Amino acid sequence: MSQLPARIEIREEGPREGFQFERGPIATADKLRLIQALAGTGLKRIQTVSFVDPRRVPGMADAEMVCQGLRDVDGVAFGALWLNAKGFLRALVAPHLTIDGSVSVSASEVFGKRNQNRDREEDLAAAAALMALYAEHRVPFARATIMAAFGCNFQGEVPVAAVIDRIAAVLALAGGVGLAPPVISLADTMAWATPRRISAVVGAVRDKWPDLELSLHLHDTRGMAMVNAWEGMRLGVARFDAAIAGLGGCPFGKHAGAAGNICTEDLALLCAESGIETGLDLEALMACGRLAEEVVGHPLPGRAKQGGLLAV
Amino acid sequence: MSQLPARIEIREEGPREGFQFERGPIATADKLRLIQALAGTGLKRIQTVSFVDPRRVPGMADAEMVCQGLRDVDGVAFGALWLNAKGFLRALVAPHLTIDGSVSVSASEVFGKRNQNRDREEDLAAAAALMALYAEHRVPFARATIMAAFGCNFQGEVPVAAVIDRIAAVLALAGGVGLAPPVISLADTMAWATPRRISAVVGAVRDKWPDLELSLHLHDTRGMAMVNAWEGMRLGVARFDAAIAGLGGCPFGKHAGAAGNICTEDLALLCAESGIETGLDLEALMACGRLAEEVVGHPLPGRAKQGGLLAV
Repeated sequence: MSQLPARIEIREEGPREGFQFERGPIATADKLRLIQALAGTGLKRIQTVSFVDPRRVPGMADAEMVCQGLRDVDGVAFGALWLNAKGFLRALVAPHLTIDGSVSVSASEVFGKRNQNRDREEDLAAAAALMALYAEHRVPFARATIMAAFGCNFQGEVPVAAVIDRIAAVLALAGGVGLAPPVISLADTMAWATPRRISAVVGAVRDKWPDLELSLHLHDTRGMAMVNAWEGMRLGVARFDAAIAGLGGCPFGKHAGAAGNICTEDLALLCAESGIETGLDLEALMACGRLAEEVVGHPLPGRAKQGGLLAV
Repeated sequence: MSQLPARIEIREEGPREGFQFERGPIATADKLRLIQALAGTGLKRIQTVSFVDPRRVPGMADAEMVCQGLRDVDGVAFGALWLNAKGFLRALVAPHLTIDGSVSVSASEVFGKRNQNRDREEDLAAAAALMALYAEHRVPFARATIMAAFGCNFQGEVPVAAVIDRIAAVLALAGGVGLAPPVISLADTMAWATPRRISAVVGAVRDKWPDLELSLHLHDTRGMAMVNAWEGMRLGVARFDAAIAGLGGCPFGKHAGAAGNICTEDLALLCAESGIETGLDLEALMACGRLAEEVVGHPLPGRAKQGGLLAV
């Protein structure tokens, strides 16, 4: 286990992932209640909303209202997701957000078409357009997400070479407009990852770009999220997205069953008991996990919020 | 990953674990429906019932009726659990069972008192009495379970030395009556295991007894079962207990939340996608997972039964 990192950073995706995926309407005030509770757990980065088309993702129709309701917390960055210039410009004028530039491209062309109706070239062109905007607005280019990096419900296996190709294309585009390489988030959008696939993809990316910072975005649809995260940590990956209580899922991924992200508090507990620092308050996270269930009105898949801390 | 076994054996504990732990009464016919479905998945060993005091474990009051209803399946051994001579003698006369001798001792004395009302010496004396019966009845001594091998909700940390001490005591007793060393099942009865604890305990046992066959019995109460199983497999452990759909839990463990075993179909899926043979039919297992939910009348924690096989 020699490569286990001393510390990892968990980026909270629960509000963004969960409120896009849940079927029932969730009151803006309830979203804010969960977000502010999360801001008291030691999380440094909380993804709050997506600026996307409310006709496609009705749960995000109140994105501006959520931002208006945020209360700043010292040391906590509230973030947002957007996938095109229009979304970025909405985010730019929303209050209380930390605006870090990000792009998402799909390693599976078929999924790219389903998710954003973009083929490979259109996918890159959209990323390039966003990067140009980041350069123009002097917004740091923080993160590039490679979606479907471990497999795809529509295409099937995604070759490691396709992931490498997408990263290379993003890095070339970034260099072209004078932007430094961002964190590369390898997203298991449709829960195809296994330890073996994690090892293959992370290993290939590391071989080609030893200095790139990697992050993993994992879903637990098939029960593999924790074991995949562990494999990532064994390989030295020190950045993870996670969602409180295991909220979330991509609305366009054709998932069966619960499709949530790796559960923040379960991952934090694994780290705490493995000597890996997260800076998180586990008791406060467990309470947030239970609050998330109250807010969405049904049980959520995370285990530790009930199974609990070890206390004698 | 060099020690990953080429093949593991999964022993199904779902009926025994689940029917002891579920609150609602489950009809004998429904138990049998699930057991026979499991017998069609490639599982070679299915624990069906416990011969225990029905006043303490009401869900097992129909143990004899379940056995009478079993239909033999080629290549499948139906097993049972007992914790004392009375239970063993009930099992001996029940039809359709494969009678393998087993004993259970607790690495935590406090848990031993709660579970069986036995202190350390009484715990060993009960094991010795069973071994004498196995020798007398020419029943193979197949398995010794070390309960609470990774920690205890009552005692807290369980020192590795306590696990070693219990194994040494069992092996000495077995040798004393001419029985060969059994498989040692390290049971995470109260879900304290983490990869680090798995590594510490398995490593210490291996150091002392390189040739002992080890098995892991893991609970997912805190979301760690899969990562613990993976760590076990990385260390070369090739025997695992598991429960269909993640059924189960010890009635005397003071668990919060769902306390089920590692989920059979999730573990089998991890193995299938990691190149580790299980001999199991994944589609049939997923169907059994859904049947288990139907039989107990509520959702069960396993993920793959809904999240599904990868099919494009």
